[in-house]
Amino acid sequence: MDKVKIGIIGAGRIGRIHAENLLRHPQAAVAGISDPFGNDELREWAAERGIPVVAQDSGVLLADPDIQAIFICSPTDTHVPLIKQAAAAGKHIFCEKPVSMNLAETKEAIEAAESNGVILQIGFNRRFDHNFSRVRELVRNGDIGDPHLIKITSRDPAPPSADYIKVSGGLFMDMMIHDFDMARYLSGSEAVEVYATGAVLVDPVFAQFGDVDTAVVTITFASGALGVIDNSRKAVYGYDQRVEVFGSGGSAAVSNDYPNSAEVHTAEGVRRDKPLHFFLERYNGAYIDEAAQFIASIKDGTAVPVSGRDAYQAELMALAAKQSLQLGRPVKLTEAAQSAISQ
Amino acid sequence: MDKVKIGIIGAGRIGRIHAENLLRHPQAAVAGISDPFGNDELREWAAERGIPVVAQDSGVLLADPDIQAIFICSPTDTHVPLIKQAAAAGKHIFCEKPVSMNLAETKEAIEAAESNGVILQIGFNRRFDHNFSRVRELVRNGDIGDPHLIKITSRDPAPPSADYIKVSGGLFMDMMIHDFDMARYLSGSEAVEVYATGAVLVDPVFAQFGDVDTAVVTITFASGALGVIDNSRKAVYGYDQRVEVFGSGGSAAVSNDYPNSAEVHTAEGVRRDKPLHFFLERYNGAYIDEAAQFIASIKDGTAVPVSGRDAYQAELMALAAKQSLQLGRPVKLTEAAQSAISQ
Amino acid sequence: MDKVKIGIIGAGRIGRIHAENLLRHPQAAVAGISDPFGNDELREWAAERGIPVVAQDSGVLLADPDIQAIFICSPTDTHVPLIKQAAAAGKHIFCEKPVSMNLAETKEAIEAAESNGVILQIGFNRRFDHNFSRVRELVRNGDIGDPHLIKITSRDPAPPSADYIKVSGGLFMDMMIHDFDMARYLSGSEAVEVYATGAVLVDPVFAQFGDVDTAVVTITFASGALGVIDNSRKAVYGYDQRVEVFGSGGSAAVSNDYPNSAEVHTAEGVRRDKPLHFFLERYNGAYIDEAAQFIASIKDGTAVPVSGRDAYQAELMALAAKQSLQLGRPVKLTEAAQSAISQ
Amino acid sequence: MDKVKIGIIGAGRIGRIHAENLLRHPQAAVAGISDPFGNDELREWAAERGIPVVAQDSGVLLADPDIQAIFICSPTDTHVPLIKQAAAAGKHIFCEKPVSMNLAETKEAIEAAESNGVILQIGFNRRFDHNFSRVRELVRNGDIGDPHLIKITSRDPAPPSADYIKVSGGLFMDMMIHDFDMARYLSGSEAVEVYATGAVLVDPVFAQFGDVDTAVVTITFASGALGVIDNSRKAVYGYDQRVEVFGSGGSAAVSNDYPNSAEVHTAEGVRRDKPLHFFLERYNGAYIDEAAQFIASIKDGTAVPVSGRDAYQAELMALAAKQSLQLGRPVKLTEAAQSAISQ
Repeated sequence: MDKVKIGIIGAGRIGRIHAENLLRHPQAAVAGISDPFGNDELREWAAERGIPVVAQDSGVLLADPDIQAIFICSPTDTHVPLIKQAAAAGKHIFCEKPVSMNLAETKEAIEAAESNGVILQIGFNRRFDHNFSRVRELVRNGDIGDPHLIKITSRDPAPPSADYIKVSGGLFMDMMIHDFDMARYLSGSEAVEVYATGAVLVDPVFAQFGDVDTAVVTITFASGALGVIDNSRKAVYGYDQRVEVFGSGGSAAVSNDYPNSAEVHTAEGVRRDKPLHFFLERYNGAYIDEAAQFIASIKDGTAVPVSGRDAYQAELMALAAKQSLQLGRPVKLTEAAQSAISQ
Repeated sequence: MDKVKIGIIGAGRIGRIHAENLLRHPQAAVAGISDPFGNDELREWAAERGIPVVAQDSGVLLADPDIQAIFICSPTDTHVPLIKQAAAAGKHIFCEKPVSMNLAETKEAIEAAESNGVILQIGFNRRFDHNFSRVRELVRNGDIGDPHLIKITSRDPAPPSADYIKVSGGLFMDMMIHDFDMARYLSGSEAVEVYATGAVLVDPVFAQFGDVDTAVVTITFASGALGVIDNSRKAVYGYDQRVEVFGSGGSAAVSNDYPNSAEVHTAEGVRRDKPLHFFLERYNGAYIDEAAQFIASIKDGTAVPVSGRDAYQAELMALAAKQSLQLGRPVKLTEAAQSAISQ
Repeated sequence: MDKVKIGIIGAGRIGRIHAENLLRHPQAAVAGISDPFGNDELREWAAERGIPVVAQDSGVLLADPDIQAIFICSPTDTHVPLIKQAAAAGKHIFCEKPVSMNLAETKEAIEAAESNGVILQIGFNRRFDHNFSRVRELVRNGDIGDPHLIKITSRDPAPPSADYIKVSGGLFMDMMIHDFDMARYLSGSEAVEVYATGAVLVDPVFAQFGDVDTAVVTITFASGALGVIDNSRKAVYGYDQRVEVFGSGGSAAVSNDYPNSAEVHTAEGVRRDKPLHFFLERYNGAYIDEAAQFIASIKDGTAVPVSGRDAYQAELMALAAKQSLQLGRPVKLTEAAQSAISQ
Repeated sequence: MDKVKIGIIGAGRIGRIHAENLLRHPQAAVAGISDPFGNDELREWAAERGIPVVAQDSGVLLADPDIQAIFICSPTDTHVPLIKQAAAAGKHIFCEKPVSMNLAETKEAIEAAESNGVILQIGFNRRFDHNFSRVRELVRNGDIGDPHLIKITSRDPAPPSADYIKVSGGLFMDMMIHDFDMARYLSGSEAVEVYATGAVLVDPVFAQFGDVDTAVVTITFASGALGVIDNSRKAVYGYDQRVEVFGSGGSAAVSNDYPNSAEVHTAEGVRRDKPLHFFLERYNGAYIDEAAQFIASIKDGTAVPVSGRDAYQAELMALAAKQSLQLGRPVKLTEAAQSAISQ
């Protein structure tokens, strides 16, 4: 049983998480890792894990004939060129979200993968969360009838740095994009129109970059269902990631995950520990599972669970939401797509 | 200690609930009840409870010099004339929501009460719910810091009859009006703008009357906070009434109430009984408490907990939401007020 | 429809609770109340509620031909003589628990009621709790198969006064007696043997009276099932009343009731308010329901839900537990019964 | 940084779990595995994981000078001889529970480790569970004051095979031994006396081997606290592992873990999936952590978290419980120890 040999482009936090998970996958081998800032620390890190190749130039990995698949974990503006290069080199591709902040380029990337016959999977990791995937399963099985309303709450424990905010693409593209994908995943339907409200309530620095830190987006789906997503850049009690799907036959909802189930009763009241702190804790298992599915798709030729088309649709929703906030009115996805292409 | 003598206008379901609760209040006496459909059944019902006067004409109660206060529990279109008459007769007034579907008339009713120096309390009973009032208290005490987001879910177990839908004033004025009041109550701020989406997913009969059965409304508050309300006319699992206030210092959320806390673990899974079925079960205590506060306001001269002004604001939000749905864009409350007055 | 006219003997806390509940029952009338310490305060209290007779001597009520039923809410040592007198006078009897601390006398009281053909219901109010009765129903319906284990937790928020402890009959007869009845109620089987461990951990005053404040009792049932009860005189977080029945087909368990469902998430953790404080709050509805069932038994001739025989069995379990603690070994109920009779 | 080289004796389910976890530990290397039933399947399994040595004779591992530590995962009757051999060979030892069913031999094993200066850690994995360790921490931090009552529920999803039951040592030594250790761990005190009740309610096969399948054990601790443990060999809803510690300042309790948090509300009620099925799912993280602590103790010279003395005490409690069930009376641990030694 040959292992799938993988090269990882980008050795930041998310690149290393994927590397660790792939190292533990019985059918995967990490053949190399590249990062322009690759230094002694990275080389030591890789040596301890038995990763044979460490490069500053991602081209080293792309040129390696032994490497069958690439994980793109570098900054967003490098995604499209790297997808094109990897596709041209015949490598299967796992790419972090978003593919691009430019919809036309996302389309080009998808087409590059298709025309070269390589797999392209996008890192919408939350689809693999044990809670959300159970809700999806319940919806698909008809346990709650026809979906009428999709509700998604997504709040970070603390805002990112000003440097990050500046280049993040804004709350809709950087943060809510996960929820847009989740809305499509849970509803099994495409968004037709979105309306966004937003505010700067957490930190004035967001206003400096024309961004918001708090937002509510309403969605109308092709199926007739409605959706609503709320985001905040700062929930002092930790990472808040919940969904509810309400339908003709009932509702399915999930709460957060907690580090333990201990409840303490005292004279002051009843208390328990805060939810799992952030995405590394909450989505630990989801990262493992999305990588495993990618490996399985390569081995078995099955369809990837999150395609380039999924990336495109979520990005389109983010663009439409951004436009809606600017215009102060609902925006149809067809309108957003047109304006994105005509730019 | 003299009891407050009360006349009840309207002997339908809600009129009788108030009567039962007042009969058990140590400082209240039910002096009479009127209903145009008053018949033998009503007379027997009243006799069993020791209510001395039963009339078909509400004027009998209004003319009774012993009666100090009136509960208006008759159809909405009678509220304003009855408030005016009761105020002119010097009776304190408890009126069910909404005061009117016509904002100008609501204003006249409020002014009638003010100019006659009588108390006017509105039946937004949910403010007295043990769960919601605890959230309000937590918000007021600063336990969650500055509110950033108010979320309200409100779903009925089953839609009303077609006859009722026809004259209901529509989902926003008939059903969501409670949530509009709750949004003001929880946030401690006034709405500035609303945006409504809606759909007919439960029963096509709603479309016949130009109404919706499912709706999501986004609110912008003067404080900068955002709000979102979702309504459905049919939750098969029963009455669903939950709120969450999220703020700079944390969040406060309440779940539904249940008939018992029994959890059954079997080979099939874990289950428990559905939430309390409908408003009579869920708000049983709230009805008792709102009446008690009304009595206390009369006895002590303290301000009523829900004023005519509160009714006006919630009605204005309902009108703005209705307009928003029709226009397909957000509507400011100032705009809705202007169009309501210029009608 | 004639109301059942009731006399209440004992105007302490529990006597007044029953009075208030009966006053609100449409088929009951409180015809009189007696208390040796009856004074102006009691007369005023009764006058406000329209209770026509107030006496210091319970004989006044027992001699009143209009009174059909008696609630015995006086101290335990008066129960048996009062039951005998009331039975002789042909009154139906509701008696607070325990009937007596002397098993032979309890038997005499039961026989007095039987031979005079009057109803005797015992105040094991917890059987009427919405949570426990739901568990009983689930067990009876076979939802959890054959019961294998009955677990009961019962803890008070604070210990009673030293004066009360002195005459209480001890933890098993005063406090755990409710749980012994609950064990029989939930299991649908009779206890065969008990083993008690106990300790003085809350307050040394219990040791002064040869009592314990903390205890665990293991029960063997005739059905083969096992049971375990834990009691504490002091749970700083409030009244703790939970049960679990585990069986061949699953388990059914209930948690405490809470004043509200508000959960607060902050940087320190997640918290909620303490459970309902004590029995008046927790068993408010149970007191109403047990009185209603007593009235119904009188009106309809149906069997009482808690009989004198139930009192006898629970008292026997308490005696056996007391003996077990003294002897440091398990005690069969037959052994305890024999020693109780031969005393 | 040298890795600790480890040999694993016993390649059954638990041996392989430890192997997998050690393979992923950055400071551990699995140098070999032995099993008398070692065959091609085991060799293939080991080859895939890069485990260089596969033997049928554990002596191969014990004689290997490169191997520093041994995991004893073979049947219980081999534990003591293997501990003695490993200690004599100067290897650190991790041994699964129980060390032995013979208390005198357990003592010899402990002394062998001590006299040879090697580390001996016992596989009471539940101490490393995120829920139980949090309760222990809360107790130690004084969050609940002085412990008054320790309650432990431990139920398996299904009974083992008749073959296993026959040699298991009985419910107290095979199953409840984990709970005896947990009782000591949570209370921070030693048991003085135990009283056991038991029954055959799940399967008559247990009676054939003089065993029970359902049991309740009451414990008296040296601190004065009480304890109670309930066990069942069959909970149809899955693995049920809960604890509660109640004390002068409050209580700390944990519920089971679940595969997801999805709650489904339908017309039939509210439901969720069953708890995690069995120990592999529930204690997955605990197995990883206990191995990590063992490695840390070797590297850092810190005391092991679960010592041979801990094994001895838990085994003594199991013997006392067994005796108690046979004698039908409480048994002091001093009495059980004496009878165990004099055997």
